[in-house]
Amino acid sequence: MHWDDVGSQVCSIARTMSVLGDRWTMLVVREAFIGTKTFDEFVAYTGAAPQVVSARLKRLVEAGVLKKEPVADGRSRSEYLLSEMGQDLYPVVCTIMVWGDRWLSDGRGRPHALRHTGCGCVTSPKLACDACGKFVSRKTLTGEPSPSMKRYRAQMFNEASQ
Amino acid sequence: MHWDDVGSQVCSIARTMSVLGDRWTMLVVREAFIGTKTFDEFVAYTGAAPQVVSARLKRLVEAGVLKKEPVADGRSRSEYLLSEMGQDLYPVVCTIMVWGDRWLSDGRGRPHALRHTGCGCVTSPKLACDACGKFVSRKTLTGEPSPSMKRYRAQMFNEASQ
Repeated sequence: MHWDDVGSQVCSIARTMSVLGDRWTMLVVREAFIGTKTFDEFVAYTGAAPQVVSARLKRLVEAGVLKKEPVADGRSRSEYLLSEMGQDLYPVVCTIMVWGDRWLSDGRGRPHALRHTGCGCVTSPKLACDACGKFVSRKTLTGEPSPSMKRYRAQMFNEASQ
Repeated sequence: MHWDDVGSQVCSIARTMSVLGDRWTMLVVREAFIGTKTFDEFVAYTGAAPQVVSARLKRLVEAGVLKKEPVADGRSRSEYLLSEMGQDLYPVVCTIMVWGDRWLSDGRGRPHALRHTGCGCVTSPKLACDACGKFVSRKTLTGEPSPSMKRYRAQMFNEASQ
């Protein structure tokens, strides 16, 4: 299977990675959440080459994650802003950050702490059930693959076995 | 900046993407969570070429996300299992899935629903504060960049401006 076909897998992770699963893309998304808006800033803060940033911004706009809007400063520049679809990536960015804080620390503390305005505490957000509000984990969630996902996986397995 | 240096950024997202930010890597991790263990199964279910799967498994073992263990079946095969570090990626996998369910649906429902054994409901887990247990969002979390992150970003910006 070519990567270009991964978005057609019956799997929301595969579909998501077809949009985000590029090495620099999540750093571009990270910057959008920090408030980076212009092309030059994206280049500066991601550390990626200009042509890489250009391609990733274009792709994220096409996918609907970012909106490209003209800046009203008479210099015909554009800004890149998170769409609603893009803003909804916040939990993804958060969980990636929390994991990196724990497992890839350089021993000098969290690069970027999060404080919950509700209780005032520094927090490493965890997953909770959207129905009952209780914390959930792999042990308290059971997966229920849909019939179409089951068929798709059986087909993948059969094709590979031939 | 070359991608190989991204892990040195003062940012837990950059560090995490230096491990996971490869197109096929998250699909390999997804499979490990579903219970896929052998090389042939990883190839079948990800749809990636064998040499791609081989390289990604090797990298994930080196990074500490997967453990490679011999299978005691006398056929000198290996199994790949999630380490504690790997199991801790569950919230990342979950939030990616929830986002894909919402924004990249093919109109045929969730490929893989999650049911909370605690309350019995199908759930799309959300982030909650690990201190007070309340749901959190971008609006109720404030970022507090560390001094070293601030210095690092200023340096990135200055280097790019030169």
